[in-house]
Amino acid sequence: MPNLFKDLPATAGEEDFVELLSRPGVRIERIVSFGQSTPPDAPYDQDHDEWVLLLRGSASLWVDGDGEHNLRPGDHLMIPAKRVHRVTRTAANEPTIWLAVHFCLDARITPPAT
Amino acid sequence: MPNLFKDLPATAGEEDFVELLSRPGVRIERIVSFGQSTPPDAPYDQDHDEWVLLLRGSASLWVDGDGEHNLRPGDHLMIPAKRVHRVTRTAANEPTIWLAVHFCLDARITPPAT
Repeated sequence: MPNLFKDLPATAGEEDFVELLSRPGVRIERIVSFGQSTPPDAPYDQDHDEWVLLLRGSASLWVDGDGEHNLRPGDHLMIPAKRVHRVTRTAANEPTIWLAVHFCLDARITPPAT
Repeated sequence: MPNLFKDLPATAGEEDFVELLSRPGVRIERIVSFGQSTPPDAPYDQDHDEWVLLLRGSASLWVDGDGEHNLRPGDHLMIPAKRVHRVTRTAANEPTIWLAVHFCLDARITPPAT
């Protein structure tokens, strides 16, 4: 039985992205952060909607027009397509585990079916 | 900020289903159980695939052809369409919180867009 809280990456290194499920139009992934944040000069600006749920740890997420959110486990929000956003902080002393659901309605970014 | 672990239902009563997000082809819901199980004579037999993630509590899930799984927080699995399944147990002394993603590819059950 796969478990979201197991097989965590080592603390030092890049953010870790694991695809859990991919269907036409939808992709679910686990993201593990360990103190990383999005570079201020390279925010996310995606062509698709993304729903994120913070499961463990803590983070701050800035969303254009909406300000900065401090996220605790259980917090979730939808980030609409083309809404510029940036993770400004993730916990430095513990892993921060996210679940992200990408709604890839744009054919250009529809992932292959599994 | 909505939080999956807040606004839990009272302990006595029915299982609680809250729709978090609905798109053409995809529906995400939170389910809170408190000791309930699926009646043996009325198992689930769905026309669509469902991905489930157990977030808190514990449960046992029987899936036809696959046996019984004991689920702990973080465990997740895909239940294919038409695969008969049944929740045989959920924790009696604490809420069991699930995240369910329904892939409603069949037009008959595509939910309305929000």
